[in-house]
Amino acid sequence: MSFISGQTQWFQKVITLPAKPRGCHLVTQDVLRQIPELKSFKVGMANFFLQHTSAALTINENYDSDVRVDMEMMLNRLAPEEAPYCHTMEGSDDMPGHVKSSLLGVSLNIPVSKGSLALG
Amino acid sequence: MSFISGQTQWFQKVITLPAKPRGCHLVTQDVLRQIPELKSFKVGMANFFLQHTSAALTINENYDSDVRVDMEMMLNRLAPEEAPYCHTMEGSDDMPGHVKSSLLGVSLNIPVSKGSLALG
Amino acid sequence: MSFISGQTQWFQKVITLPAKPRGCHLVTQDVLRQIPELKSFKVGMANFFLQHTSAALTINENYDSDVRVDMEMMLNRLAPEEAPYCHTMEGSDDMPGHVKSSLLGVSLNIPVSKGSLALG
Repeated sequence: MSFISGQTQWFQKVITLPAKPRGCHLVTQDVLRQIPELKSFKVGMANFFLQHTSAALTINENYDSDVRVDMEMMLNRLAPEEAPYCHTMEGSDDMPGHVKSSLLGVSLNIPVSKGSLALG
Repeated sequence: MSFISGQTQWFQKVITLPAKPRGCHLVTQDVLRQIPELKSFKVGMANFFLQHTSAALTINENYDSDVRVDMEMMLNRLAPEEAPYCHTMEGSDDMPGHVKSSLLGVSLNIPVSKGSLALG
Repeated sequence: MSFISGQTQWFQKVITLPAKPRGCHLVTQDVLRQIPELKSFKVGMANFFLQHTSAALTINENYDSDVRVDMEMMLNRLAPEEAPYCHTMEGSDDMPGHVKSSLLGVSLNIPVSKGSLALG
């Protein structure tokens, strides 16, 4: 690809995902369905920012859904409910959620190419 | 929001935070005070990049300061000083700092909306 | 720095890194060699996005190569091969790779200043 210059277009939108139980969930289609505007961008950068601190966004394999089961199991090992937390007033699963959120992150940048996420 | 196009404005600035002891610290106000230029951006993307490798940037709950105490406790469990590190010439707390830095990350992108960080 | 406005230039390129054994590897020079276009950007944001889910990108100290040895050791402690994974059909090192990939992340944003990465 060569350099592309000209007017840069910006688009920002708040979207909502349906509530989900604790675990690792595939949200790609839920998100994409709500941003048809993505198709307008020949080249660009999409930032997905989660306005919550007990959840996180990550990219991973989806071919085998066991990957999500294992990821949840490992996240629970890394941030177990039984750890000696001080902050328990919002429940025993609150602090583990905050730890997992910081480990995975709430802000995800994915390049946009020809109107789609360039996930590879 | 509809599409916004036109001239894109860029702004880049190196800021310094006061030295802090090991732990999880709230730096939002320290950072914002040093970038009044943020107010000029109707829509945009702010990248906060930490030019250190023994510290990290993350977003999390701030209502209860115990969250920061617990986060520090959990980070110390994930990257304890007693692990069998080779790289100890800069002290026993150096390598744990590098591990925590990579786990949380040093580069944070936050959407900007109407001159403020869209933290939600 | 003052505000810079005008036409924003975009550049996107798919690059390939040579295959490497499991471990922590320094790829900065391999990457930079393939993006001489970086020099054209006075100010900007570089996003490095890894189109794999068993590898990750992170920034860390490079002065002492032991840091990479220790980082690998710690990542193996955090995501050991012996954990009770369900997803084992691609080998016992596949799922640990996915976990490490999510912990460190595959998308890295680094500010660009005067044609170089502003790593500090």
